[in-house]
Amino acid sequence: MRNRPLRGSRSPQMKADSDLVRRQNRALVLSNLRRRAPIARVDLGAVTKLSPATITAITADLISEGLVETVADEVSDVIDADPGLPARRGRPRILLRLDARAAYILGIKIAINQVTFVLADFGGQIAARRDLSIRTIGEGRLAFPKRLVELARTFLAEERVSARRIAEIAIAAQGFVDQGSGSVMWSPAFTEGDVRLVDPLEAAFGVRCEIANDANMIAEALHAADPTTYGGTFAVVFVDYGVGMGLFIGDKLHSGANGSAAEFGHMNHIPHGPLCRCGRRGCVEAFAADYAIYRDAKGMPPDTDPRDASPTNAELLALEAAAAGGDGRVLAIYEKAGEALGYGLARLMALINPGRIVFTGASTRAFPLIEPAMHRAIGDALVEDLRRFTVFETLPWDKDMILTGLVADALARLDREVFADPANAQLFRQDLVA
Amino acid sequence: MRNRPLRGSRSPQMKADSDLVRRQNRALVLSNLRRRAPIARVDLGAVTKLSPATITAITADLISEGLVETVADEVSDVIDADPGLPARRGRPRILLRLDARAAYILGIKIAINQVTFVLADFGGQIAARRDLSIRTIGEGRLAFPKRLVELARTFLAEERVSARRIAEIAIAAQGFVDQGSGSVMWSPAFTEGDVRLVDPLEAAFGVRCEIANDANMIAEALHAADPTTYGGTFAVVFVDYGVGMGLFIGDKLHSGANGSAAEFGHMNHIPHGPLCRCGRRGCVEAFAADYAIYRDAKGMPPDTDPRDASPTNAELLALEAAAAGGDGRVLAIYEKAGEALGYGLARLMALINPGRIVFTGASTRAFPLIEPAMHRAIGDALVEDLRRFTVFETLPWDKDMILTGLVADALARLDREVFADPANAQLFRQDLVA
Repeated sequence: MRNRPLRGSRSPQMKADSDLVRRQNRALVLSNLRRRAPIARVDLGAVTKLSPATITAITADLISEGLVETVADEVSDVIDADPGLPARRGRPRILLRLDARAAYILGIKIAINQVTFVLADFGGQIAARRDLSIRTIGEGRLAFPKRLVELARTFLAEERVSARRIAEIAIAAQGFVDQGSGSVMWSPAFTEGDVRLVDPLEAAFGVRCEIANDANMIAEALHAADPTTYGGTFAVVFVDYGVGMGLFIGDKLHSGANGSAAEFGHMNHIPHGPLCRCGRRGCVEAFAADYAIYRDAKGMPPDTDPRDASPTNAELLALEAAAAGGDGRVLAIYEKAGEALGYGLARLMALINPGRIVFTGASTRAFPLIEPAMHRAIGDALVEDLRRFTVFETLPWDKDMILTGLVADALARLDREVFADPANAQLFRQDLVA
Repeated sequence: MRNRPLRGSRSPQMKADSDLVRRQNRALVLSNLRRRAPIARVDLGAVTKLSPATITAITADLISEGLVETVADEVSDVIDADPGLPARRGRPRILLRLDARAAYILGIKIAINQVTFVLADFGGQIAARRDLSIRTIGEGRLAFPKRLVELARTFLAEERVSARRIAEIAIAAQGFVDQGSGSVMWSPAFTEGDVRLVDPLEAAFGVRCEIANDANMIAEALHAADPTTYGGTFAVVFVDYGVGMGLFIGDKLHSGANGSAAEFGHMNHIPHGPLCRCGRRGCVEAFAADYAIYRDAKGMPPDTDPRDASPTNAELLALEAAAAGGDGRVLAIYEKAGEALGYGLARLMALINPGRIVFTGASTRAFPLIEPAMHRAIGDALVEDLRRFTVFETLPWDKDMILTGLVADALARLDREVFADPANAQLFRQDLVA
């Protein structure tokens, strides 16, 4: 693990009992402000079940620390109409919300030859964004991080935001990510392995940086938006350029012993099967990714390097149209993809017993071709008692979901690990305004 | 979910802040007493990081509630020699420990034609035990629970223990368990499915009853004995009459959306492969269980009903000796079992990224035959970055591990859900002595 004497890296310590409960209560108030603001103190008390005295003390602290601001209630009647909250009429109220300017998150999404920067405020709004076509493939493992630092510097300069106002840099990347070394160990976006991104960014900006797999951030986005439906144990299957997964277990993102969990695309389907982008044979992705379908449809041998089988979007649409139009040979390829996904999910269900499996990503448009074979495979692989509790759902793809999740995840971490502790919050704010 | 107005079923509610912290602190004190007793108050303070005043107040409550007792320190020098604890010489000390008589757990283990009852005291010691050869195979799904109630009644009567002194009945069973309905949905121990055990036991004794899969309880036993080594994310593979698994994720047993997670034995290895006991084809168990090896070695067709391929222990030993002695055909069968386990574990590693995988169970004695093929399969299935962080370990099989884990799990639940709340503890104790 890296040693990081950086702003934002002060982790909470186990202290005496009163400190612990104070941090828990502050974290509870912050997370409810994040979800429900603008909100009156009385309603904050109702949803957190904290006493009026506790709410008054915590919100006073948060206001004096510059994390929360007050706003007059202008739509009092509408808010009061919510049957879940205590009614209150005819009196002007003071509502609370997070102060958007309290801190910023710099979010970076890395995909094949594409880098996106966003600047998100403390309220979670995207204040600025830049989508850049940047060569990632073929770029050296030491050269790329330097380039990324320069691009980030330019983005912040153009937006006239000092690095001192950034609370965290959060990266989402395709591929295997090692959170311990802050590195992209292997990714379709890079030719070389072990591209260390976290250390150079932390060194350049003096700010804590975290890295995550892109599909994990989709699961975070769903959980942040609707924690009741997307909570407990659920999996998101992200079918796009490859097959990714985000896995929630026990209401939390499961990243495993070193952050490389949920690599569903590189879970073996058939021993000694077709060649995968990861270099192994028979992975789920080697049957279900765009390149796998294209390789098979074009009659290329199954050990063809996936880099030599890159379909254009038009070619993919043509294959889908052929299968939908009754071309049995092409349809059988989509069915094989469905079978690989189905057996893979049956294996996941036997191990994890998820309450819900969600499909999303650009390739869900081919789902009508894939789905029947997929469900047939699940039924073949698994006795009913191991599958009847799992709900399946397909969500239309929103390409900003990865960034939404990345920002939500970074802000939740900030609330929990920094701002939950009043002492940390003060130190942090002093740093920011210095 | 069942509705259970029973002793021990009062679940903790979110109350105001001071109540919450009091419950957390009591639970912390109880779990440390469970692990480290006999222990002095000052040392309890050191390990829990709670203030002396808090320790004094909590332990006074626990003593007055009859949950904790005091004992004179007779081996003061030995305990003081522990470098991790404050030194204290020449003064007699008062140590604290759990009062063994505070409550009892009735543990029941159900395997094929074998039922074991244990009575464990509040300190976790087994006070009485009965191993019974009871027909489970062929017994009806309604008849067996009745029989089990009678057997439990007889056991308690013989031990002269009133049902009123039992805090919880905890069952460990082979097979798929549905915790919601309190039922064994499918098990090699039963011919019929959906054997509902929890409701009849709760009705007969008026005591909360919980049911779990047997392999899960092995993971609990390891975690209770050494939470540092067996914590975080780890898997126990239990190779015996079948292939079971216990899965810890985020320092907790993962039982999934309805308690049927970690069914590693019924995770598909090869689509349309040999017939498994669950009725599906190609499960890991259909390659690696005793019956699978025997069926293949005897030249029976792969769709032979596993019930028609039950080797005796002597037959298994003979097969192992043949393979170890150079019989290539038999050795290849063990290697096939190793390949199924290896691909299964590689799939698990891609999904879960565990820090440790532990093998145990009677069949680990055949491990030298299985292991090389297993590790070869893991290497074939998974790129190095997804496997190099996982530690593999084989533990000698201790057949009491399931019962040890069952009792530890029940006591931890009791601490957490009942005795952590002073009000619940008092009500509970009133019930017990009434």
